[in-house]
Amino acid sequence: MTQKQPAARIRRSPEQVRAAVHQAVIDLLSEPEGEDLTIPAIAQRSGVNHTSLYRRWGSLDALLADTVTTRLERDSPLNDTGSLRGDLTAWAEASARSMHTPEGRALVRAVILSMPSSTQDQTERSQHFLRRMHSIEQIRERATARGEDPPPLEQILDQLIAPFYIRAIFGIGLPATGYPQLLVDRLLGTADRRARA
Amino acid sequence: MTQKQPAARIRRSPEQVRAAVHQAVIDLLSEPEGEDLTIPAIAQRSGVNHTSLYRRWGSLDALLADTVTTRLERDSPLNDTGSLRGDLTAWAEASARSMHTPEGRALVRAVILSMPSSTQDQTERSQHFLRRMHSIEQIRERATARGEDPPPLEQILDQLIAPFYIRAIFGIGLPATGYPQLLVDRLLGTADRRARA
Repeated sequence: MTQKQPAARIRRSPEQVRAAVHQAVIDLLSEPEGEDLTIPAIAQRSGVNHTSLYRRWGSLDALLADTVTTRLERDSPLNDTGSLRGDLTAWAEASARSMHTPEGRALVRAVILSMPSSTQDQTERSQHFLRRMHSIEQIRERATARGEDPPPLEQILDQLIAPFYIRAIFGIGLPATGYPQLLVDRLLGTADRRARA
Repeated sequence: MTQKQPAARIRRSPEQVRAAVHQAVIDLLSEPEGEDLTIPAIAQRSGVNHTSLYRRWGSLDALLADTVTTRLERDSPLNDTGSLRGDLTAWAEASARSMHTPEGRALVRAVILSMPSSTQDQTERSQHFLRRMHSIEQIRERATARGEDPPPLEQILDQLIAPFYIRAIFGIGLPATGYPQLLVDRLLGTADRRARA
């Protein structure tokens, strides 16, 4: 197969190709001029022939989803801090750091773009959502194993995850200090009050 | 100018054309198959020649932004309920109703897609954001005029608006009952606690 892009002349391992393609997706989404994210644009940027992209991923949506899953896993090393509050704060601090980088904001855009459209099959959407929430579910499971009583996933979604997404969408910066703690305090504070009610 | 689409043969007023174009944008974003939102697709759907679309709106982004602004204003009739809590609850109830319709979810997608990319000029992004937050700012101003002490806009964003957006993004349904009140209780409850601290 003829490769047109110069970068493709260098022989790369499948994992190097995969990493280059993921990076091309993130780069295209980080650009000021907002170049359209298309298979040909990703081929051009990564130096991987577009027929190879279709063969490997099948569609732009699948490629986007693979990029998101891989990056979210790479960016979320979840050490056990010993408490639910500590784990959630560590998650929020990592998210806050990520949001200060163009790559982090591009990743949020990728997550949003990779969601199945709202009228699609509910099962598919739920699976997609749960894959994205994997690290939060780990935190909840560890808390339960410790005998703590973590808030429901949907409450964590509304109070801890949603603020990061909405600020990425609207390009609103995070408060310089204390934001991760503030969100966790609101989340667990509310959880405590509801438990007592 | 030759109009190719059958619907365009009917002479429409400028306002009818504008409404038809906005509806085409929302329809395209509501579709299960997620047809690409492009000027040619909008031209086809609305029966308005694509050169007319470019002449009137200049770009897809501008057309998307105009659709969003017009629909948000139409969908948010903000009667004064006499209190901050009442106004916020009415806003949240209207948002909850809107999220149960494909059109409402399409509108959220349109808002997200119409945001300037995250690396663009900060002033432009802020103006864009404030136009989207117009109805919330009205509620805050009325509260201040009454002698109430409304939470800062960013806190309302994080605690009241963000949950609706994140659920639309991930296709997570809202709890059947009490959700608007729950969000407002969390928002104003937290505000009270912070004021006492």
